[in-house]
Parts: sequence; C-alpha cells; structure tokens
Amino acid sequence: MSTNTTINAYAATSAKGSLEPYSFDPGPLGPEEVEIAVSHCGICHSDLSMLDNDWGMSNFPFVPGHEAVGTITALGEQAKGLKIGQRVGVGWTAFSCLSCPQCLSGQHNLCAKGQGTIVGRHGGFADKLRAQWPWVRPLPEALDPASTGPLLCGGITVFAPLLVHGILPTSRVGVIGIGGLGHMALQFANKWGCEVHAFTTSDSKEEEAKKLGANFVHNTKRDGALDQLAGSLDLIISTINVPLDVPGLLGTLAPNGRLHVVGAVLEPLPVPAFGLITGQKSISGSPTGSPSAIDQMLTFSARHNIAPVTESFPMSKVNDALEHLRSGKARYRIVLENDLA
Amino acid sequence: MSTNTTINAYAATSAKGSLEPYSFDPGPLGPEEVEIAVSHCGICHSDLSMLDNDWGMSNFPFVPGHEAVGTITALGEQAKGLKIGQRVGVGWTAFSCLSCPQCLSGQHNLCAKGQGTIVGRHGGFADKLRAQWPWVRPLPEALDPASTGPLLCGGITVFAPLLVHGILPTSRVGVIGIGGLGHMALQFANKWGCEVHAFTTSDSKEEEAKKLGANFVHNTKRDGALDQLAGSLDLIISTINVPLDVPGLLGTLAPNGRLHVVGAVLEPLPVPAFGLITGQKSISGSPTGSPSAIDQMLTFSARHNIAPVTESFPMSKVNDALEHLRSGKARYRIVLENDLA
Repeated sequence: MSTNTTINAYAATSAKGSLEPYSFDPGPLGPEEVEIAVSHCGICHSDLSMLDNDWGMSNFPFVPGHEAVGTITALGEQAKGLKIGQRVGVGWTAFSCLSCPQCLSGQHNLCAKGQGTIVGRHGGFADKLRAQWPWVRPLPEALDPASTGPLLCGGITVFAPLLVHGILPTSRVGVIGIGGLGHMALQFANKWGCEVHAFTTSDSKEEEAKKLGANFVHNTKRDGALDQLAGSLDLIISTINVPLDVPGLLGTLAPNGRLHVVGAVLEPLPVPAFGLITGQKSISGSPTGSPSAIDQMLTFSARHNIAPVTESFPMSKVNDALEHLRSGKARYRIVLENDLA
Repeated sequence: MSTNTTINAYAATSAKGSLEPYSFDPGPLGPEEVEIAVSHCGICHSDLSMLDNDWGMSNFPFVPGHEAVGTITALGEQAKGLKIGQRVGVGWTAFSCLSCPQCLSGQHNLCAKGQGTIVGRHGGFADKLRAQWPWVRPLPEALDPASTGPLLCGGITVFAPLLVHGILPTSRVGVIGIGGLGHMALQFANKWGCEVHAFTTSDSKEEEAKKLGANFVHNTKRDGALDQLAGSLDLIISTINVPLDVPGLLGTLAPNGRLHVVGAVLEPLPVPAFGLITGQKSISGSPTGSPSAIDQMLTFSARHNIAPVTESFPMSKVNDALEHLRSGKARYRIVLENDLA
C-alpha cells in the first residue's frame, strides 16, 4: 500500500527562525516506510540545537520533532510487525541500513548510514510523520500517549547506558543534571534497583529529585560535595552539556567505575590518564538506543509506572513552547498536543 | 617459620642518584610474607620514574625492581599455596588488604590499601625480596626464568585489558608504541586470535612489529594514517606516555570501540564528548593485574611461547643497565641477572 498526500507541519525557513505553518508532499510511501498520524510530539533540547543549526547539519525549511506518538495510517509493502491503527512512537532515528554489522547485530542506532528523524527529513511537528518500520515502535497499552513522547528520545538516551553496560541493581548510580533527561534517569535507576545519587547545582531541586527516585542529592556547588563520595559510584550518567569536573568525578567512582556522557558538551573533556588507570575506570558515551532497547525501555516504563513529568502545549502554540524550553523553565519536558488535524 | 637476615641490594640514596650496594635487615618474616632468592629482575620504565621521584611517592634509600623471578626460601605461617624451593615471580604489587570489596572479588590489583613492591618497600634489585603470598606467583615450567621477569609487570599490564574487557578473538586490536610494553601486547593480541595493528612513528620497526604479531603496521607520522583506519578497530591499547591524538584515535574505533590507556601520560587527554557519544565508544585505563590475571597470563604465555625480547646485564652493572634504558635504546626489555649471591 502506498499513499500520496499532503503533510501539514510547522517549519522554520532559517536558523533560529520562528516556526510557521508549512505543507509539503512527501511523495509515495516507500516500501519500508510507515506513516503515522501524530497525536503528540515531545520537544527535546536537540530540536532547539537543530533549529539553531548549532551542529551545522540542519536543512531548511526545517520541521522539528522526534518524540512523536500517534497511530499508523499507512504501511509500506515491506513494513514488518506493525498494523494499521496501532499506537506507536518514533524517536531520534527514522532510518538505518539494516545490513551493516551494527544493524545486523541489533545495534541499529550505531548504523553509519542512519538518518535522524529531523536530519535531512521532516519531523513530528506535523499531522503526519514517516519513518522506516524498525524505528516505529508499538507502545504498551499502559503508557499514556500524552506523556510517552519524551521517553522515545530523552528516555532511551538515559536508559540505554544501564542496558548496554550491563549495570546491576547492586550498583550505585549518579545522575548529573536534574532536567529533561536527568529526571527520567533518576526514575530508571531507582526502578533498576540501584542506589541513586542526584547531582545538581540547585538546592531547590532536592525534594523533587528524591521524589523522582534519588536516595541522595548532592549540590556540587558546595565545597567537598564530590570528596565525600570518593571511590563510591559505579556509574555516573552525565546529562548536562556544560564542561565537567572530570578529575573530580573520576574521584567519586569506585574501582571499575564509569563516567558515561550523554550530554553533548562541545568543549573537550580534560581526562587525566592516571585517574583512569589507577582504579580501572572508563569514560564513555552513547547515542539514544536500538529498536530493541527502545522496546525494553517502554516495557520497563509500563511495568514500573515510569513517566516523564510533562507540560502540555497545543501544537499551534509551538513557538511559545520552544521559548519556554529555551528559557530553561520547562519542568521537565514539553509535549505538543496535535491540533493540526 | 620466620627468618631474620640481611638483604643485600642496590639502592639510590636520593632522587636520580646512581645505585650503590646497600644492605638492610628486613626484620622477622611476617606471617603472610614469602621470601624469595632473586635470580633475575627485569627493569621497567616505572623503576626509572620512581628512581627520579617523578610521581612524588619514592622513599630513599630506594631499591628498585618489581619484575623479580626467583625461588622461595622462606614462608610465613599464613602463606598459602606455595612451597619452599618453588620458582616464582613477583610483579608491581607486593601487598593488598585481602578483605576489601576489590580483594574479595578477586581484583586485588584495585585494592586501595595495596602496596607496590617498590613503593614504601624495597624491591628486587637485591639477593632477596619479600612479598605477601597472593602476590608471589608460581611460574609454569615452560617459561625461561631469564626472560619471564618483564611479563610480571609490563606483560600483565597489556594482557589485563584483553581479559578484563572480555575481548574476543574476532576483534581488531591496535597497539600504540612498539616498545617495552607494546612488543608484548602485539604477541598477546596475536595469540588471542585478533587482527593486530601496530602504531609506530618509526618505519624501522615495521618488520619487527610484524614478526611480533602485527598484521598491519601504521606509521602515525604519515598523513592519513589514522584516516584509512576510520571506524575499524575494536580496541586500542596505548602504551606510550606522550600526548595522544585522542579525536584521531577515536575516529579509528568501530562502534563500541575502546581506547585503553596503560601509558601514564601526565597531560590530560582532550576527549571530545561527541566522539564518545556517536559510536558508543569508551576511553579507559588499568593498572597491572590481579593474582588470578597474572596466573592466566603466565599460563597463556607458556602455551603460546610468548616471551619478551630481552637484553641481559649482570645486576652488578645495574647503573649501566639503567642508563641503557634511559637512552631509549633497550630492545625491548632489560633483565638483570643476579650476581649478588
């Protein structure tokens, strides 16, 4: 089956521009493609980075949105394991080659030919969105479509390190930054069974961090905050994109500990070799997650009632929503409710 | 059983000083201690660093030597699994607490209370050496005592990353630096079954690197040397202690690849977060290895005829030997033959 239709979206025509209504013809549906009617779409910080062309890889007109939830309206001939009318989500990635070593080993998110949902493609701030079938993931019944979008990019980004590195529930896990990603990381790590430490620079977030699952909250602006954790943490997930005190953080790690970076800091991290060697430590990073990892994250979230804390805006108020995110006031994740239909 | 004896050694009385004959009374043998008559002792670059007090943790008079081979002459009452007269080796570590989480989980080399053989203790440039029993490892019959010393520190340092990180024979492994450590790393990685890439800055080492087990040799001074390896290596072991081109090396790693540092570079490594995130990569380090890892390394070396390439000096010529190492001319590892008895 193929469709030929018009997609109504919101697009910026230049970097940092405001979003305006924009319609386009996506052409015939490809055999591996799936089309979904978008009911909700989360806003991720990377939507802002792409809108501002911070990474120099944005095409204009640019339609943001890569935390989309909706129902399937059309399936390409080769689309597998999905049904028309099914409720699904699409995250950061919309295409991978399926035949490289990474795809063949189930790590499609590491495919060198992978395409982001909003990189050279039009995203989910629209009435309809298309993606290759492996990247269109069915949602468990128990998840509320109004708050599931942020799990599909922000959520999987902080869930994947627990899965990929085989973190055990006996571990002590630190989370740097109690924001869009961090507030989900706290929930995952808590339900994973770990002792959870939140790192923040704001005392005002202490109570909320504990509600989200932190056993301990550390204000890193206080003298000695890192010293008192010396040699204790097995994993730290850094969700922030400002320079890190790498030597200090390595000092908080137990032997075999890992500092895992998902926040895209632009300045190089200054890593002391001795700090890695002495306690057999690692620094690592990862990009979102594979289709299988996304499924496991969704199932885990449904079983443990994990959900992002969201604020809702109608999609027609997308510019207000973006401004709210840009101001740093979003608590913690914004979801656009589609009123384009 | 305990002994009370005199140990004849070579010691420096001040940083960077030459070594002179030095005798001391080690006191009664502790219940967990083992005394060995040293037949051979390798010289490691870290003996020079400690002699020069580069790391600010040397005590004087200072007796270097932490790649010692010999036979057991005395056993403390609590020393386990060893016999008088047995041929054994002692490497970097001479003591660990045995009761911390690291010791109890078999990772004694990560014990925070661990003591180096030459850190606050007198080392193996002597007729006798003492160490705690778990650190006195029996040598397989097949290993030549004259060339086994360097396996005990340099060897285990480059073997442990293969073991600790579960490297499979299907992996592609790079080794930076074809020197004291690197020339053993090439042998280990080759016999491990991996595709082996040697990185050097000297064309003159190409042929020898291939003999040692490299399938490919790359001169990193040549333009594009790293580019042609883009996205291909699963593990790089860096044995050098000069600044690394971290972004370039991360670029040579395949998805999930790891840059593992055992060379103690003093300058911080500039690590780009994006370079870790994109391909789910890691940078890590490790210190020598546990008693169990040393045993596995010795057994593996015996089975595969792995041995360091050594130059021999009588122990009485220790200053000449140190000067030879300092000049960068050692090919590849120096072993002192004991003529102190």
